[in-house]
Amino acid sequence: MLHFSRDFDFEETASQKKTIEDAFAALLKEHKEGFVGYYDLPKNSLDIVHDVKKFTQESELLSSDLISDIAVIGIGGSSLGIKAVDSFISSKKTASRKLHFFENSDPLDISQNLAQLEKKSTLFVVISKSGSTIETTSIFKTVLEHFHIDLKSAQSEHIVVITDKGSSLSEFAKDYKIKQFNIPNNVGGRFSVLSAVGVVPLTLAGYDTLSLLKGADAFVERFFQKKENHILQKACFMYEHAKEYPINVVFSYATYLQNLTKWYVQLWGESLGKIDMNNHHVGLTPIGLIGAVDQHSFLQLLIEGPKDKSVTFICIEDFENDLQIPDISLKHIEKTDFINGSSFNTLINAQCEATKESLVNSGVAVDTIAMDKINESNIGAMIIYFELLTSLLGAMFKINTYDQPGVELGKNILYEKFHKTKDN
Amino acid sequence: MLHFSRDFDFEETASQKKTIEDAFAALLKEHKEGFVGYYDLPKNSLDIVHDVKKFTQESELLSSDLISDIAVIGIGGSSLGIKAVDSFISSKKTASRKLHFFENSDPLDISQNLAQLEKKSTLFVVISKSGSTIETTSIFKTVLEHFHIDLKSAQSEHIVVITDKGSSLSEFAKDYKIKQFNIPNNVGGRFSVLSAVGVVPLTLAGYDTLSLLKGADAFVERFFQKKENHILQKACFMYEHAKEYPINVVFSYATYLQNLTKWYVQLWGESLGKIDMNNHHVGLTPIGLIGAVDQHSFLQLLIEGPKDKSVTFICIEDFENDLQIPDISLKHIEKTDFINGSSFNTLINAQCEATKESLVNSGVAVDTIAMDKINESNIGAMIIYFELLTSLLGAMFKINTYDQPGVELGKNILYEKFHKTKDN
Repeated sequence: MLHFSRDFDFEETASQKKTIEDAFAALLKEHKEGFVGYYDLPKNSLDIVHDVKKFTQESELLSSDLISDIAVIGIGGSSLGIKAVDSFISSKKTASRKLHFFENSDPLDISQNLAQLEKKSTLFVVISKSGSTIETTSIFKTVLEHFHIDLKSAQSEHIVVITDKGSSLSEFAKDYKIKQFNIPNNVGGRFSVLSAVGVVPLTLAGYDTLSLLKGADAFVERFFQKKENHILQKACFMYEHAKEYPINVVFSYATYLQNLTKWYVQLWGESLGKIDMNNHHVGLTPIGLIGAVDQHSFLQLLIEGPKDKSVTFICIEDFENDLQIPDISLKHIEKTDFINGSSFNTLINAQCEATKESLVNSGVAVDTIAMDKINESNIGAMIIYFELLTSLLGAMFKINTYDQPGVELGKNILYEKFHKTKDN
Repeated sequence: MLHFSRDFDFEETASQKKTIEDAFAALLKEHKEGFVGYYDLPKNSLDIVHDVKKFTQESELLSSDLISDIAVIGIGGSSLGIKAVDSFISSKKTASRKLHFFENSDPLDISQNLAQLEKKSTLFVVISKSGSTIETTSIFKTVLEHFHIDLKSAQSEHIVVITDKGSSLSEFAKDYKIKQFNIPNNVGGRFSVLSAVGVVPLTLAGYDTLSLLKGADAFVERFFQKKENHILQKACFMYEHAKEYPINVVFSYATYLQNLTKWYVQLWGESLGKIDMNNHHVGLTPIGLIGAVDQHSFLQLLIEGPKDKSVTFICIEDFENDLQIPDISLKHIEKTDFINGSSFNTLINAQCEATKESLVNSGVAVDTIAMDKINESNIGAMIIYFELLTSLLGAMFKINTYDQPGVELGKNILYEKFHKTKDN
């Protein structure tokens, strides 16, 4: 369960009501007409869970129990969501197979990853929506060479591909009889974690992806039944205050939510940073913080710096861990003895509460998402919550939430650099 | 060696010249009068390196080679800088002892850290400038209990303390005859990485801290000899454009610079986010990105979103790693074959260059710090560079760069919460 609360004022005026209704109608239309596919993923991906389990049973390699490591080769939307779920859930329970991530074109990063893996125990999952992501294809080729994987032999069982139907990578997989799973064409990369992109590696690693999807499904259902209207109101507040609060901070009080905040940064930044129909540069800047650590880093700026930020706290009510601060008093350092005998669970949540109060007192717009426990269902709901919020903001800004035209320029410059080199 | 370049216009007008001279004079005064101590650390900490080596030889425990793990218990300025150096240098060479970090009050984080360590092979380094940081003292007590460390026995050899002379933690260490190193009183937590805070654990881990300090020393010397005036000009540009570019992005093209960007975020945010003498909320918001990964995340917002950000690129000219993209052409995915045969070193730097050009073309103010190689000397220079830049900005904003009054409110609220609980 997620519990939502807020410490900013919002009373729905007639014009705000219209903003909200229009945005809700826009999402409903995207959903019904199938222009945007992520709304359907919690239901449609249930089949993928079953497909993966069937594939696992039928594959000689996977059913043999030899595979202890899943290496994901993907970047951006093809890795961030998987990492978010993996690191959050693995803080509570050990996955049956360990996930590794080849993301960056950094040679040291790739070399260290390669050194940690062995061919016989690794399944490589190559993920690219378009099929031609330069980091992904380059690392894939490096993996083939490093591990001497002969794609024309049974060794191709060590590869699984996740891509759009009809993409170049999909055609490649077909030719080499490599197992592939597909991403619906109407689901963008950064909205794809509940598609095959996330469901396949997370199921292979042993996570309860049925609960992940069901948690998300229950939430999206309630949203379209208008039973989660706080999201509509929050979106309207953020839209109307976009000039006043151009920066939105997600402050998560749990070390292992770090990757969720990185996933949120991509979702928010890439979806909302756009040139609108009036040729204005719009968008909201996302920042992810981790409590209590960033109380010792960013908090001073939130309290005394420019009042240009809204803050969303995420806390976990029950970590299901009873580690206590021992009732020891050490001479000279008795000043912090007042928390002796309390659990760290109590301490971190009290820190979250205290920071929140100090921000509210300083006039910062604050809201809170409290998660009762760490489990797949809650993270599924959290994912769809941020996706819906992003879509609502995009509808209010009247931009295309789902494209990313700004990144093409850099890709073209890169191509030209090498093209010139090759010609000379 | 660091090479600095910039793609924004700056011609020093008379008034800018004055701004620069005043700020330089302010730093010179802080330095000469000893009000701010970090300028002297590169020289003064040389002795600490020798002290640590002497301590290692004299300590029965450390000289016995039993200690393979150094567990740092500290948060904020007492961990970020150590992590920055450790993760960056460890991408190139293996430290002789492994560093672990107990930072957060998250019970799962602490439990996982405890499970990875054994008493007999671990040295615990407890770091707190004030001596009464609640996360640090609470985790320290937990470690004592978990590992059954009897402070009145020879087991106290497993503890080292780093704190201000005269702090409660220092008094505690004295009483129990625990080895302590001190932080100069005129060095703030977030400026302390080149003091005992960083030098002790990094030396114990086996890093070349003499080079770290010498790299920093050479840079600070040149700065005060007015041989690094690009910093003065950059500070002036950022100060004058603070309203236009309230957000400053550091975009590092290397996976293992992630922790350096976190260190920078603390330094920048906590130093510059202040209420100035006219009661205005001033400050600049820091954001850390990693290339090429964040090209698939934040770049769209930089290109098409609000033009409220300046961007500093950091790149590494020579990773000293020749991993190549194999000259393999895979049917259907030939589109990225144009980089076949190139090294990843070439690819990631070409990506950095291409992204930079695309930002410059979009009218973003950009500058670049190129590091020739990954080594301690370069990271030392980088640390002092960002510290000097921060001090200059603080002088221009006419704020106290070195305090953090805004975080006290939350601490008081926390105390009251528990005080009430205890009384009831």
